[in-house]
Formats: sequence, structure tokens, C-alpha cells
Amino acid sequence: MTSASTSTPRAHDGAASPAAVGLPPALPSLDAAALDAADPLARFRDRFLGAGGPDGDGVIAYLDGNSLGRPLADLGERLAEFTAGPWGNRLIRAWDERWMDEPVRLGDRLAEVVLGAGPGQTVVADSTSVMIYKLVRAALDAQGRSDARRDEIVIDRGNFPTDRFLVEGIAAERGATIRWIEPDPTTGVTPADVEAALSPRTAVVLLSHVAYRSGFIADAAAITDAVHRAGALVVWDLCHSAGSVPLELDAWGVDLAVGCTYKYLNGGPGSPAFGYVRAGLQDRLLQPIWGWMGAADPFGMTESYTPASGIRRFITGTPPILAMQPLAAMVEVIAEAGMDAIRAKSVLLTEFAAALAGRLLAPYGVELASPSDPAVRGSHITLNHPRFREVTAALWERGVIPDFRPPHGLRIGLSPLSTSFAELQAGIEAIRDVLAELA
Amino acid sequence: MTSASTSTPRAHDGAASPAAVGLPPALPSLDAAALDAADPLARFRDRFLGAGGPDGDGVIAYLDGNSLGRPLADLGERLAEFTAGPWGNRLIRAWDERWMDEPVRLGDRLAEVVLGAGPGQTVVADSTSVMIYKLVRAALDAQGRSDARRDEIVIDRGNFPTDRFLVEGIAAERGATIRWIEPDPTTGVTPADVEAALSPRTAVVLLSHVAYRSGFIADAAAITDAVHRAGALVVWDLCHSAGSVPLELDAWGVDLAVGCTYKYLNGGPGSPAFGYVRAGLQDRLLQPIWGWMGAADPFGMTESYTPASGIRRFITGTPPILAMQPLAAMVEVIAEAGMDAIRAKSVLLTEFAAALAGRLLAPYGVELASPSDPAVRGSHITLNHPRFREVTAALWERGVIPDFRPPHGLRIGLSPLSTSFAELQAGIEAIRDVLAELA
Repeated sequence: MTSASTSTPRAHDGAASPAAVGLPPALPSLDAAALDAADPLARFRDRFLGAGGPDGDGVIAYLDGNSLGRPLADLGERLAEFTAGPWGNRLIRAWDERWMDEPVRLGDRLAEVVLGAGPGQTVVADSTSVMIYKLVRAALDAQGRSDARRDEIVIDRGNFPTDRFLVEGIAAERGATIRWIEPDPTTGVTPADVEAALSPRTAVVLLSHVAYRSGFIADAAAITDAVHRAGALVVWDLCHSAGSVPLELDAWGVDLAVGCTYKYLNGGPGSPAFGYVRAGLQDRLLQPIWGWMGAADPFGMTESYTPASGIRRFITGTPPILAMQPLAAMVEVIAEAGMDAIRAKSVLLTEFAAALAGRLLAPYGVELASPSDPAVRGSHITLNHPRFREVTAALWERGVIPDFRPPHGLRIGLSPLSTSFAELQAGIEAIRDVLAELA
Repeated sequence: MTSASTSTPRAHDGAASPAAVGLPPALPSLDAAALDAADPLARFRDRFLGAGGPDGDGVIAYLDGNSLGRPLADLGERLAEFTAGPWGNRLIRAWDERWMDEPVRLGDRLAEVVLGAGPGQTVVADSTSVMIYKLVRAALDAQGRSDARRDEIVIDRGNFPTDRFLVEGIAAERGATIRWIEPDPTTGVTPADVEAALSPRTAVVLLSHVAYRSGFIADAAAITDAVHRAGALVVWDLCHSAGSVPLELDAWGVDLAVGCTYKYLNGGPGSPAFGYVRAGLQDRLLQPIWGWMGAADPFGMTESYTPASGIRRFITGTPPILAMQPLAAMVEVIAEAGMDAIRAKSVLLTEFAAALAGRLLAPYGVELASPSDPAVRGSHITLNHPRFREVTAALWERGVIPDFRPPHGLRIGLSPLSTSFAELQAGIEAIRDVLAELA
């Protein structure tokens, strides 16, 4: 673990010049008010219910937007309009008029605004876990058909549990072998780690682009290249990057990708996932769950399953139209703000959080368990302290809401469009206060 | 095909006594106004947006509630409250406070009100197709572990395409054999049909309780018994029965069941499915998609997947909480109305539809492709006529909305809580008018 502090611990209420606390060049000051005043995205906070400070339910600092993003302020109204309009008024006709294409239409818009991908390669459907299962199975099975020796799935021990569990299950049912990468826990998987794991037996590599714990950004372009040189396919889990870190799936040559939409895409609790399959690969792959909506003619009531051509074959059941509405609205807000501006603010937020943690929390033994270089850090940082489980409970009591990740990680997730620097500062000061009370 | 008419065709505008058109005893008259006046559930129509007659968008008769049920009238408000409250205000804390248990809590309530099942056996999750995949795989794999000779899946050619397609895919990947039942298309699968297909090789039987085309109600109790006597497991697809036909899953000894919630459960377009697994069977079965939410300790971030005990192991990804809200509201409306009263009205509606079709449509060559005995008929009827594809398009133009099912079936779905007899009569008269224009 790397210490969050790059200077001598000092009194937590003392004033310090940026230089004195080792501020990186990107962060102009540790003055939250000044940072908020200079924030070109500050006006977007009003687009979210309760964002930016104390809200009606006593939330002082919401630092968990990477687990569940806030709802858009006008979402209730939009959902009511959806209920009365397309659903209540057009009724079943809305399927013909619009909904049948919605998984791909919304996928295309998400691809354009967030994923750096051209049209016809992205669908919105299923839960993240189900979509990972389908795409990893599709890739593994296709590889096995081409070359029976390719029976290995590469994944890292630091990957999110659902990714690891799914691969365990797939390996068990398909007789595949798992090759585990053991990455540095405070950073993440490097191209060298992947290269060392690749072999002529590699079928598929499943990695997270931004590590859920450390926030480390993997070098997706270099790793994708390495995987391709080994004749394998890569599946990127974008859960912690989509909507906060610019993505260039097409330029990186990514094969497949999956992401969740309830974090930085503010889709709401349990909102559907998205899946991306590179155009050139689609007709080679067949996912295992042959539902009617992935068939060439869903309403033909045909005898046998013929997969749709293109990205639609990765759909299974009836698309979750109601559940897509918050995501559809949020993608337009992101388009308005721009991913580059979102990333710029995200870097300032994590820099501010890391610097403030160095100043206020390092004296209590808190360590930064995330990269110190913002270039390889997503939109959250994790701090470690042996008492963070109880600290998190006490913080929730006082309306400061980070996330706890066992064994002793406190994760601070920073949604660039809905989080203010003042809120972040209040949150870190509260962590300090709780640590001081426990000390 | 059975003719809808049990009497001589007569002028479609002529008055006829019930006896003259062969009214079954359950139907007191062919007077829609009188039937509506005597309807003890009439007051429930106001609970639905636009129900019971012409609405703001010119819908004169909505006869497709078995494809997409109407939204509850107060649903927009409820969704806005959900957005502002649990999601917007409680934020991530709502997972701890309520949402983690929601798939089982709502499943239990659905089980109690609609499924005739005790608690701890039902979850709300996934699309219907994904849930069918998981439960059929779980059953097939468990059977194969006990007895390698059990490698057959029994299903009927009349089953809904997604069921057949899923079984095709499962058979392909697991090396299983499909044994096809060929039922009478105007009724459906009988116990004798099933018994003829069963053998010591049978692993799983997947059938629809109410046939999506004819509306025939299979004898679930007798078939379940027959399947058990053969040492196999049965999976019932309840898509067309849940919410319209009383179910007794526990009493019938059903092993597994799946249903969709956007038909008679008014969950909205693409709302999540429910899955039922008999308590005594749960720990023997392991579904193949090992997501974190089905693990024994989802937040333990453990090394390996250990399935949760009980029904939770059939969950995969993050539960679709927002998408469950319409269903949660509708289940309470059903509880208030009572399944027996709903079924009684459903029988009157389909009797009225069949009798009116006999009177008004049979003269044009329309035939009933559903059982004439209401005891074995769900809440829809299908009528056949060679020109129904173009008739359906013309009907939609004039605000009468049935469903078309190739090659020439017009399906009239009757949601007991939101459909009036007057609306149904207007719809059937419109079918007559279009046929008259085409003639």
C-alpha cells in the first residue's frame, strides 16, 4: 500500500499552501470554493436530485456515485410521461413504432457519446452479469470451434467478484481452464501481466478497464493488442469507466465489452447493462441464450432458432424498455457536457480527494490504495485503514456516504457531473472527525 | 379448427336471444351494458390509464393486454416518488435498507397473491427468456448429475418460440435430445400427450400452462404428477396465466416455473420475470450464471463462488429494482380484487367474446381457434381468418388493438381488471366492419 501522504503529516486544521502538501500540477489549490467557482461543469449539478450539498434527507456528501448514481432531477416527470405516453397511450403499438429498435438505438447513442464506438455494435439488455456470461461464452465457444486447443480463460484475482464467479462457472461447464493473473492490488493489471499469461491455449481474456477497488486504469489499447497477437479475444468490463473515463473501443480494436449503467450513467438501481461486440466479429459469435428477441424474425413464430445478423443476436429476452429510460436521458446530459470535460473534472476531483486525504487523514494512518498518478486512475480512490468498517457506519449516520469494501477499504466515488468540491471536502473532513473520535 | 359458431349465421345487426346464439350457461346475456353494470370488478377499470373505453389517443378497444398490460393510473406518480425517495434520497443506503431483499420480498408477495405458493420459492429477476434458460439448465444439469441417462428435454411444437429456441440452444450445448410433443393446435398439451413422451431418459419437461395461441389451459396438476412418476422435473411457463388464471404451484407439486410480468401483471414493457423453484429442490439445483447476487455473500468479495442457500441462488446480477415498481403496485391491486373474482370475470369476457364472434364474425368465415369450454381456456381467444393480417392493420388504424399471430390468427387478450364488456363489443363489431368492407 502506498501512503496517501507525500509530505510530513500536519495538523489537520492547519492551513497549507498547495506546494507544502505536494499538490500535483493539475490541481490549482485545495480551496474547494475556488475549485467549485472555476468548475465549468458546476451548472450540471442542478440536473440531479439533491446534488452538490446537503439535501432533504440530510446527505452532506454523497461519495458513492460509482455504486449508484443520483437520479436526474426531471426523471420523475420523464417516467410519468413515458407511462402516460408510449406505454399508456400507444400501448402495444409502441413496440412496432419504436421499442423493438430501442436496445440498438440507445446502444448506438451510448456508443457515440461514451464508448468511442460506431453504430451497430452495442445493445442495452440484461443485467451486467448475464451480459458478461453471454459474451464470454460466445467468445470462448467461437474460439473452441476454431481451435480446440484454445481452452483457457485469463482473468485477474483483483477483478470484481461477479466477473470471477461467472468465469468459474463457465470454466466448470465448458471444461475450460482459468489462468489467474495476480496484479499489484494498489494498481492493477499491466500489459506485462497479460503477456505473461497468454499462450497458444488462451481463448478469452476478461479484464476490468478501471479496477473496482484501486481505480487503476488498465492500458486497454496495449492489452488488446497483446491479446490479439496471441490469437485470443478480449472482453473488457467497463462498469467503472463508462461515463467517467473516455473510451475508444473502436480505435483500441476491442473485441467485446460489457458495462453497467447505474454508476456514472445514472440508470437507477438494477438498470440494464450494455454489451459491445466489434462489427467484424459479430457473425462469428453465437451467444448461448437463444431467446426470441435475438432471433432473425422474432415475430415469425418459426420452427427453429436462426440468430439475427449483427448485434441483435446478442439480445435474448424482451428489452427492458421502462428500465432504459433513465439511461437514455443521462446519455444526453453526458453528450451536452462532453466526455473530455467530464474526465478533466474527474481528475481534479480525485486529485483533490487524494491531496486532502494526504493532509487530513494520513496523520491517522490512512493510506491511499489507488494510483497516485491521475493518468492511470479512474473516478474513484480507495483509502485503507483498519477501522474503516466502523468508520463507514458512523459516516452513514451523519449523512456522509462513501462505500466500504472489505477488508478495510473506504471507497470514494466521484461522479463528475453531480459532485462538488465542497461536498467532497465536507466528506473527507467527516472521515477525519470520525477517526479523531475513535482515536 | 372448430367453428366459433354453434348456430346458423344470422344478420350481424339482428337482435338475438342468448339461447338463439348458443350462449353457454355462465354468460347471462349478450348485452354488454348489462354485463358491465353487473361486473363486481368494474370499479377497478379506473385504476388503469385510459381503461374501459375511448382514451386520449383514440383507442376504442384495447384487446392486447395479454401482450402488454395497461399502466396503473397512479404509476407515474409512484415512479416519481420512487425516484425522489428511495433512489434520490436514500441513495446507496436503500440497498441495505430494502433493495437487497426486494427480489424475494416481491417474489413472496407474488407467490401469495398470484401463484398459490408459499414464501422463499420465488424471485423477480432477469428477462423471462433468461430465467427459463437458467431454470431449465439447472434442472437438466441436476438430472444429469443424478443419472447420466437422463438426457432428454420434452417440449411441444406449440410452445412459444422463445421456449422452443432456448431448449434448442440448451440441447445443442449440453448434448441433450429434444423430444417434441405435437399437440392439437386449437387446444394444447394433454396429460396423455406428455405420458407418451416420457421415458427413463426424460430429464426435464418445459410446457406452457396457458397456450399463447389457443389459450388452452393445460392440466398442470395431472401433468406434473405424470412427470414425477417418470422421475423427471417439470418447468411451467406461466406467461399467459399469471394474473388471470388461479395457480396452485405448491398444491400441484410444481418443480419450477417462470412467468413474465408485463401481461396480466402490468409490469410495463420489458419488465422483469419471476422464477419459482420448489423449496425442497432448491439446494439440489445450481443455475449456470454465477453472478455475485446469487452468491452466499455478495459483498464478501470472496475468492470463489459459493451459491446462496435457498431461492437466492437463482439470482444472477443486480436486481432490477426500478423496473419492479409497476409490478409491485399491480400485485396489490390483484390482491384487493382477488384471483377468484378475476378468473370469474375472465371467463365471462372470453365467453362473451366467443359468443359475439359466433354471432358477428362466423358469417364471414371466422373460426374460433381456442377451446370452446371456458374451463380449459385462459384469458384470451384466438380467431382465424385468411385475411386477418390486413384486418389487424386496419383495426389498429381505427383504434381497435388486438394482436396478430401468423399465419392468420387474431388474438383477443382480455385483461379482467381493465377491460369492459362494452369495449370488447366495440372491438368485435369493428372486426365485423372491417371484414364487411373487405368482403
